[in-house]
Amino acid sequence: MNKAILLIQCPDQKGIVSDVSRFLYSYNGNILEVDQHVDEEMGMFFMRAAWELDSFSLKKDEIASRFEAEIGKKFQMEFKLHFNFPKPKMAVFVSKLSHCLFDILGRHHAGQLEVDIPLVISNHADLKPIVEAFGIPFFYIPVNTSNKDTAEAEQLALLKEHRVDFIVLARYMQVVSAEFIRHFPNRIINIHHSFLPAFVGARPYHAAYERGVKIIGATAHYVTEELDAGPIIEQEVARVRHHNTIPELVQIGQDVEKVTLSKAIKYHLDRKVLTFKNKTIIFY
Amino acid sequence: MNKAILLIQCPDQKGIVSDVSRFLYSYNGNILEVDQHVDEEMGMFFMRAAWELDSFSLKKDEIASRFEAEIGKKFQMEFKLHFNFPKPKMAVFVSKLSHCLFDILGRHHAGQLEVDIPLVISNHADLKPIVEAFGIPFFYIPVNTSNKDTAEAEQLALLKEHRVDFIVLARYMQVVSAEFIRHFPNRIINIHHSFLPAFVGARPYHAAYERGVKIIGATAHYVTEELDAGPIIEQEVARVRHHNTIPELVQIGQDVEKVTLSKAIKYHLDRKVLTFKNKTIIFY
Amino acid sequence: MNKAILLIQCPDQKGIVSDVSRFLYSYNGNILEVDQHVDEEMGMFFMRAAWELDSFSLKKDEIASRFEAEIGKKFQMEFKLHFNFPKPKMAVFVSKLSHCLFDILGRHHAGQLEVDIPLVISNHADLKPIVEAFGIPFFYIPVNTSNKDTAEAEQLALLKEHRVDFIVLARYMQVVSAEFIRHFPNRIINIHHSFLPAFVGARPYHAAYERGVKIIGATAHYVTEELDAGPIIEQEVARVRHHNTIPELVQIGQDVEKVTLSKAIKYHLDRKVLTFKNKTIIFY
Amino acid sequence: MNKAILLIQCPDQKGIVSDVSRFLYSYNGNILEVDQHVDEEMGMFFMRAAWELDSFSLKKDEIASRFEAEIGKKFQMEFKLHFNFPKPKMAVFVSKLSHCLFDILGRHHAGQLEVDIPLVISNHADLKPIVEAFGIPFFYIPVNTSNKDTAEAEQLALLKEHRVDFIVLARYMQVVSAEFIRHFPNRIINIHHSFLPAFVGARPYHAAYERGVKIIGATAHYVTEELDAGPIIEQEVARVRHHNTIPELVQIGQDVEKVTLSKAIKYHLDRKVLTFKNKTIIFY
Repeated sequence: MNKAILLIQCPDQKGIVSDVSRFLYSYNGNILEVDQHVDEEMGMFFMRAAWELDSFSLKKDEIASRFEAEIGKKFQMEFKLHFNFPKPKMAVFVSKLSHCLFDILGRHHAGQLEVDIPLVISNHADLKPIVEAFGIPFFYIPVNTSNKDTAEAEQLALLKEHRVDFIVLARYMQVVSAEFIRHFPNRIINIHHSFLPAFVGARPYHAAYERGVKIIGATAHYVTEELDAGPIIEQEVARVRHHNTIPELVQIGQDVEKVTLSKAIKYHLDRKVLTFKNKTIIFY
Repeated sequence: MNKAILLIQCPDQKGIVSDVSRFLYSYNGNILEVDQHVDEEMGMFFMRAAWELDSFSLKKDEIASRFEAEIGKKFQMEFKLHFNFPKPKMAVFVSKLSHCLFDILGRHHAGQLEVDIPLVISNHADLKPIVEAFGIPFFYIPVNTSNKDTAEAEQLALLKEHRVDFIVLARYMQVVSAEFIRHFPNRIINIHHSFLPAFVGARPYHAAYERGVKIIGATAHYVTEELDAGPIIEQEVARVRHHNTIPELVQIGQDVEKVTLSKAIKYHLDRKVLTFKNKTIIFY
Repeated sequence: MNKAILLIQCPDQKGIVSDVSRFLYSYNGNILEVDQHVDEEMGMFFMRAAWELDSFSLKKDEIASRFEAEIGKKFQMEFKLHFNFPKPKMAVFVSKLSHCLFDILGRHHAGQLEVDIPLVISNHADLKPIVEAFGIPFFYIPVNTSNKDTAEAEQLALLKEHRVDFIVLARYMQVVSAEFIRHFPNRIINIHHSFLPAFVGARPYHAAYERGVKIIGATAHYVTEELDAGPIIEQEVARVRHHNTIPELVQIGQDVEKVTLSKAIKYHLDRKVLTFKNKTIIFY
Repeated sequence: MNKAILLIQCPDQKGIVSDVSRFLYSYNGNILEVDQHVDEEMGMFFMRAAWELDSFSLKKDEIASRFEAEIGKKFQMEFKLHFNFPKPKMAVFVSKLSHCLFDILGRHHAGQLEVDIPLVISNHADLKPIVEAFGIPFFYIPVNTSNKDTAEAEQLALLKEHRVDFIVLARYMQVVSAEFIRHFPNRIINIHHSFLPAFVGARPYHAAYERGVKIIGATAHYVTEELDAGPIIEQEVARVRHHNTIPELVQIGQDVEKVTLSKAIKYHLDRKVLTFKNKTIIFY
C-alpha cells in the first residue's frame, strides 16, 4: 500500500488536530495512523499522521506545498513529508565485529526491513565475503590517524553516488567528524554499547565490570558532534551477574546491541521518530 | 484540571478523526490526548480523545447528546463519555492474601490513584485492622457453599449503597456468579495468578512448577461468565529457576500480581481501555 | 583450557558434595565451577562440577571408571562425563524461515559457540547459498507425506556419517518421528514459537492474537514423543499491543525465538542442563 | 529448620571446596546449598554454604573456632558464620515518601521477610499512624542542618537499645555521616532512584527526563562514605516513553524502587551477599 507520512512540530495551539485531519479528509485521504504529543513544559505540539495515498486526490508532488499553504503557515509548523516509496537507501558502516551487521543483513534478507542497502563500508576487509553472499556491495576503506580526511571524502563520494538517505554505524569503531555529520543531520544512527548516560566512551563493558552493575545495556542514538550525547532512539538492557567475565559481558551485551539497533532502524524507517532539543519522540 | 474523555467504536470509515476533532474544536476544546486504532480484520475503528473541560463551550450535560446528534449518529458510533470528576468509586474484594490489597492501599495513600475507595469487602476478617488504619471501611461477609446467594445479595446492597462504579478482585478467592457479574459488565477487574491462557484454574503455581516453566506471570482481566477467559487488560512476567520451590514461585508471583493489577486499575481509571469481542484496546 | 564436566543425579544423601570434591582434589583437579541442587520433593540430588584437566592426574579415559568405582557406586549415581574437546558436532535443521539459522551462523562465525556445524539439513533449497557462504555444507532433503520415512532415513545416514552429537530444529516445520527421536534422546533442541504451555500446536501467533494476550513468547525444549511437551530449557517473552497485527506478532516473536534458541544451545553446549522427569535443571 | 550459613573469601587455591565440604560432613552436616565463585582476575575464591544445624554434631558456639582451626587458618580465610535464628533486627529509616516503607511492611506482615523490625525512624511524623497499625514502634527524629550530630546520636542510641543488626534507608532523604556509617559497615542498605552510575545525586528523574532516556531504574546498594558509590546489591529497570512527564517518571520509578529494595533486603537476610572491593557477589 502506498502511504504518505507527515511529521509535524509547532507551538501548541487549539485546533491543530482538527485542521490537519480535515485537510487530509478534504482530499479524500484515509487516515491509517495518527499520533500526537504535547510537551507542556516547552509548549510544543508534535504529530505524526499516515494515510493511504492511492485514493488521495492531491498528487504526490503537490501535497507539501498545499499543506504549507492551507495548514502549515497558519500554525508556524515545521513539517516533513515522507512516502513509503521508493524505498529509502541505507548505508551500513562496520569494522570487525559482525553481530549487528549480520542481524541487519538477516532481517533484510527475510524482508523485515523496507529499505535498500546499496552498500556496506568498512575499515577492515574481513566481512566482505559474507556481505557479498547477501548480494550487497562491500567497500573496504582503511582509516588511520593520517588518512581520516581522505577516507571520509571517499566515503562521502560513495554515499552520494549511491544516493544514500541515512547511515547506520553498526559497531563502526571510528569517530566520524563533525564535518561528516553535517551531511547527515539526524540521519546517522549509532549503537553505543552501554546504557547511556552510564559509561560513555570506548570501553563501557570494562567500566560496567569495574562498577559491578547488575544490568548492562545498549543505546541507539543519532550521532551529533558531541560524542555519545545525541538524541536517544532506543535502549535495551540485560541482566548480568557477579560471575560474568568481561568477555561474557561483551557477548551478553552484543545481543542487546543488535536488538536495540534494529529497533531504532525500524523506527527510523517507519518515520516514527521526531527529534527536538536533543530528545526523541517515538510514535510506536 | 477538569477533563472529558470520549471512547468511541464504530465501523471504519473515512473522516471520523476529522469530524471528531472538528467537533471538539468547534466548541473550543483543547485536545490533550488523541489515540485511534483501526482493526482492519474486523473493519472497526476505535478512538479515545481527552480534552480540557474548563474552556469548553458545551455544558457537561449537553456534550453526549450534541455529540450523538452531530457525529455519533452519522458514523453509527457506540461511545462513552467520562469525566475525571467526581472521582470514580472502587470497591476492593479480598480474602486472606494481602499483597494486592496493601499495594492498592499504599498507592491510594500516596495519591497515585484518582479514585475513592468507599469500602473493602472480605470473606475473612483478618485484614480489617490495617484497612481501617488506612481510613477505609471494611465489611466482613463470610461466604460458603450454602450462603453464596445471600452473601452476594449483601455485597450488592453495599455496592449500591456506596454507589460503587467498579470492583477490583484483589485475590478474592471466590468465584462470583453470572448474576453478580451482570451488574458490573466489564467493570470487575480480577487478577489471575498465571500468564493466561497458560494455567487456568485454581492452582497455577503448582501447575507451573510441574511443567517446569522458566517464566511465570500474572494476568489482570475483566471478569466474564467463563472463568479466567475475560478480556485481558495487562500481563506481566518474572523469571524463575529450577531451584524455586512452590512457595518461592508464589512469592515471586505475588510481586508480579500486584504490579499487574495496579497497572490494570490505572488503565481503567484513566479510561484507556476499550473492549471489543473479548479483547481490549489499551491506549496507554 | 581443557576442561572436564561431570553431571550427576542420585538419591539425596549426606556427604555427596564432600566425596565428589575430595575425589577431584585427590587427583589434583582444580575445580572451576560447582553447582548443586536438591529436589526435596523428589528426594533427588543433582550436581555439576567442572575442573581443569591439564593438571589432573587421571587420564581422560580413566576418569569415568574411577569415579564410578570410588564414588558413583556408593551413591547409586547416574552421571555423565563430558570434555570441552573435541568440539561437539551440531546439525541444524531448517525450513524456509531463516531468522534462527542466521542467528546461529552469525554467532558461530563470531566464535561465540564452541561447536562444529558439519551440516545444515533443509526440506527447502532456499537458504543453501548463504549457508554455504558461511562455509557449511547444506543438504536439501524434501519431505512430504509420502516420503517421510525415507527422508528420515536419509537424514539419519547423514547425521551418522558426520558423527553429529545433537540436533537443533531451527524452525524446522516438520514433526520428527518417535523413531527418529529415539536416536537422539534429549539431544534434539526445538524452538516453539509460543510461551508454552500456552498455545501449543501449529499457529500460536494466530492463537495469541485471538486471545488478545499482552505478552508473547518462545520456548526452547528438548523434543520428546509428545508434541510441544518436552523438558523446557529456556523461555523468553516480549510485550505486544492491541495494534500489532499477526505479521507483526510474528516478527516480534522471531526476535524472541532466536535469542531463546541460542541461549538453549549455549546451555546445552556448556553442559549446564540436567533433565529429570520432564523438567530441566539449568546450572547457569 | 535451623540453618547455619558460612560465607568465605580467601586467595584461590586447590582443595578449598573439598576441605570445606569434608569439614561439614565430618560433623554430620547436611549441606542444603553450596555456591562458589572464583574471581580469576583478582585470584580470589568466594563461597557460601548452608547446612542443617539440627543434626550437626558441633555446638553452635563451637563452629567458628573449629572451622578456623581446621580450615580457615590453612587457607587464610576471612569468613562469617550466620544462623537463621534468632531473627536479625532491621531498622527502617524513612522520610515522607511511603512506597518503599509500605512495601516492606506489607511483606513483613505477610511473613515474607524473616526479620524483626523493632523500629522505624523518620525525620517526619507523617507515617506514624500506619506504621503503628502494623504494630511497629515509630520514632520521629527531626533533622536539620544545625542538629544533624545530635539527631544521629539519638538514632544511634535507639539502634543500640533495640540491638539493630542492619538498617534500610527506604527513601530516607538525608545523607548519613561517615561517622554513622562506621557503626554499620556494609550493613546500611540504601535505594537510589536511578540506574547507577547514571544520574547520581538528588534529582535523577529530572536528569533522566532531560537526557531523554528510554529506560529508568533503581539501585539498591550498601552505603559507603562516597555518595551513591557503594557496592551495588540489586538493580531493576522500567521502560518509559517520550510522553511521560517527570511526575510519571517518579511514579514508574517508585514501583521499580520498592521491588529493587525488597530484593536487596531478601539477599541480605538470606546471607547471599559477599562484598569485595566495592562489588558484591550475590549467590542467588
